[in-house]
Amino acid sequence: MTTTVPPYPVLATVDLGSNSFRLQISRVVDDQLYTLDSLKETVRLGAGLTSDKLLTQEVQDRALACLARFGERLRGFEPAQVRVVGTNTLRVAKNAPAFIEQAEARLGFPIEIIAGREEARLIYLGAAHSLPATKEKRLVVDIGGGSTEFIIGAQYKPLVTESLPLGCVSYSLRYFADGVLTKQAFRDATLAARNEIQRITQAYPPDAWQLAVGTSGTARSLRDILELNDYSGGDITLTGMERLRGELIRRGQLRNVALNGLKSDRLPVLPGGLAIMIGIFEELGIDRMIVAEGALRDGVLYDLLGRQQEKDMRDTTVTAFKRRYHVDLAQAERVATLAERFYRMAAGDDADADMVKQVLWAARLHEIGRTIAHTAYHKHSAYILQHADMPGFSRREQATLALIVLGHRGDMGKMVPQVREPVLWPAIIALRLAVLFHRSRTEVALPQALDLRPVSRGFELTLEGEWLDANPLTASALKQESAQWKTAGFCLNFRQGQVQCVTPI
Amino acid sequence: MTTTVPPYPVLATVDLGSNSFRLQISRVVDDQLYTLDSLKETVRLGAGLTSDKLLTQEVQDRALACLARFGERLRGFEPAQVRVVGTNTLRVAKNAPAFIEQAEARLGFPIEIIAGREEARLIYLGAAHSLPATKEKRLVVDIGGGSTEFIIGAQYKPLVTESLPLGCVSYSLRYFADGVLTKQAFRDATLAARNEIQRITQAYPPDAWQLAVGTSGTARSLRDILELNDYSGGDITLTGMERLRGELIRRGQLRNVALNGLKSDRLPVLPGGLAIMIGIFEELGIDRMIVAEGALRDGVLYDLLGRQQEKDMRDTTVTAFKRRYHVDLAQAERVATLAERFYRMAAGDDADADMVKQVLWAARLHEIGRTIAHTAYHKHSAYILQHADMPGFSRREQATLALIVLGHRGDMGKMVPQVREPVLWPAIIALRLAVLFHRSRTEVALPQALDLRPVSRGFELTLEGEWLDANPLTASALKQESAQWKTAGFCLNFRQGQVQCVTPI
Repeated sequence: MTTTVPPYPVLATVDLGSNSFRLQISRVVDDQLYTLDSLKETVRLGAGLTSDKLLTQEVQDRALACLARFGERLRGFEPAQVRVVGTNTLRVAKNAPAFIEQAEARLGFPIEIIAGREEARLIYLGAAHSLPATKEKRLVVDIGGGSTEFIIGAQYKPLVTESLPLGCVSYSLRYFADGVLTKQAFRDATLAARNEIQRITQAYPPDAWQLAVGTSGTARSLRDILELNDYSGGDITLTGMERLRGELIRRGQLRNVALNGLKSDRLPVLPGGLAIMIGIFEELGIDRMIVAEGALRDGVLYDLLGRQQEKDMRDTTVTAFKRRYHVDLAQAERVATLAERFYRMAAGDDADADMVKQVLWAARLHEIGRTIAHTAYHKHSAYILQHADMPGFSRREQATLALIVLGHRGDMGKMVPQVREPVLWPAIIALRLAVLFHRSRTEVALPQALDLRPVSRGFELTLEGEWLDANPLTASALKQESAQWKTAGFCLNFRQGQVQCVTPI
Repeated sequence: MTTTVPPYPVLATVDLGSNSFRLQISRVVDDQLYTLDSLKETVRLGAGLTSDKLLTQEVQDRALACLARFGERLRGFEPAQVRVVGTNTLRVAKNAPAFIEQAEARLGFPIEIIAGREEARLIYLGAAHSLPATKEKRLVVDIGGGSTEFIIGAQYKPLVTESLPLGCVSYSLRYFADGVLTKQAFRDATLAARNEIQRITQAYPPDAWQLAVGTSGTARSLRDILELNDYSGGDITLTGMERLRGELIRRGQLRNVALNGLKSDRLPVLPGGLAIMIGIFEELGIDRMIVAEGALRDGVLYDLLGRQQEKDMRDTTVTAFKRRYHVDLAQAERVATLAERFYRMAAGDDADADMVKQVLWAARLHEIGRTIAHTAYHKHSAYILQHADMPGFSRREQATLALIVLGHRGDMGKMVPQVREPVLWPAIIALRLAVLFHRSRTEVALPQALDLRPVSRGFELTLEGEWLDANPLTASALKQESAQWKTAGFCLNFRQGQVQCVTPI
């Protein structure tokens, strides 16, 4: 292991889960993270979701108050030190965008909603760092408040990842809302869970892993209860859980339940969590499960550490996508090089290292939609970028990539209502112009002098007149492009040497 | 060559092109088609497209009057004997759906809009049947009124297909609207054409083909003019076209042009067609082009003949897609078999051979969206089916497939506004139930007795009670499914033997 000196020796993460919000601050020492501080509040965001998938005002107020407290703790942190992730409830809530805006204001940092499979990847990363680095394959199961993640992995590498919409908060609400603990309610809840799990059963056969690991609050709580009440000898077992279920049914009501090892804030979500865990054991053929401490927040921090050390998962994903979608690599690199150059010129002093990365990724992937169809392929590329499982990327980053790629050809007027952040325009026009100059898909001699700069409501491109004369096709394309920009209320002036030859608007 | 007796010895096609509408009726003899009758009207649909991409009332009236005449000629034909295809103008016109509805009423047959690449495939098929079956590779170019297709193929097999939005009608309108024939207008039009063609130049290098072939009215007209005015020695050549262009510029105005071999109805679209053809020769490095008689309408007829002889291109495409999108073949066949069975029961007397095919194709391709993401994969499958280049399929067929696949899981309430044709419901619910019964993705023993029948506002499923008891997961899934149908205003009753166990609504 090499000793690295990352730019920031302290990193922080906030996990906006469906059951609890957690803040964790860790110190980096020799590629490992050591927790300095952690805060947890049982906001139970998932319980504030109406049947119309709207967050109630009450739960929003509770969440915002918590985030204001977390924000205080994070004062003085740099953006690059902090990563805030939201999971299932924020994935599905229809009013999440408005809530997130307020939440970011309270917290002082951007919030990234991550897809289920990305959550699974990060959970595994967190769990793997708290487990011995043996070669055996593990099945990691994380029952959250709103979703459950299933990962088979070995050492630090997740091999199979899935996320299903079943969680201890949602199932407790759905099947045990009145606090009544009947045999039928457990049966219904477990069958419903198994129905969901059945979708993925084939990808998780018992011979594909050697050790089952639970990582969530539900798993920890079950282990504690089973152990401290002598239902099992230390780990989570199916017979132990069946004994616990029998005991709960005997008590009949949630309010009558008091068990060694059961914390009061876990009580309301215990029946749903138990029913799901039994369903998982039955459906995936698990006999015994150990509990690991590492979880989503640890994975987020290790991922953030990786980015600092130039082992950015996002680069790995872009490389994999180039292969998967049969990208013309030479063309992609040509366009990427020129797009970066144009972006730096177009953004001027506002050029931003993160946006440079986005421009490069967008350039490398702008043609992936050709695998669907040639016609309107930029729309298909954008569709894939928006919807695909892209390890390392948040949903917002995927949306940004999709928008830059969508704008690289076609109607600019249609882009205007979609581009809500003006800082995206230099990225969009950079890719657009790079593609235009490389339309022949061969090595072309670019103009020696090539300058792009922001002007009022647009950009000005300056290049040698002789070059334009020698490349009449590009000259004609630039003329059409200039007309196209006009439809978006933008101007593209282009100058030959000092002679301005087109002045739209 | 085998002698076949197809069910219909006479086939008909109508080609709703951007320049002309054509009706062709052919007799089938020994796998070959012989034209019995053909009608052509220069409707010039593409010239009736406003800058907002709306068909003017005037051009619609002209087109409908023509179709009423064609409809008269087609009286007595069976639907399986006739195929009507629409191309570029109908692809892009925003008010095409309303127009098509009226057009179908006049014509008496459904109209299928085909994608550009499908048009290219059919053009090649038509051209190949009029050329000697040698092994040399041909570059076939078809300049239409609104789009131009480029195909490299050998014998009857197209190898590379592309369609670009440049046509003799649209270019004549854009660059020669006032009938003035200047050097600058030709230069602008040819450069614009080359700019479009440049996108595909790399896929059509001069060493990839041995013979260039033109198939459209533009090609025939150019050949005639060049030959009859001694601009070239029989075929289309670049020098010949340059001489013609010089002559047109000398005349200065379209109204001053009269040339041997130029028919009056071709005159208005000659300058656009010439500028495009020069652009194609320059950009793709063509010296000489022969003209073939076969065209889109011949290809459509040969394709229709293939379907009668169980050499349906659509089956070939579905097979290719299963491979391209890594479909789990065993699961696809399991679901297809059961979906067909459910469809036949659900549709009862309305069961339709074409819809059976759609159900089977939908079942075989319902999981292709998994290559994009696991989450909401049914939406991704539908997206691909709607947008992909699928040789043999019309856009309407692709839309139907997409809808059946979209409905196979998730929210049924959301399907209701999208399913405009009630005959689609039996297909949708058949696939939905087939997927439900095969959710374990393994060989399952289905109930011995399994019956599905239409009832008032829904369907009734009857199966053995013992089977449900032995398969509690499927029983629970059917219960949830029944609740799901309720949200769409449908009912799914399911009966165990004769005991009705769920009666929603």
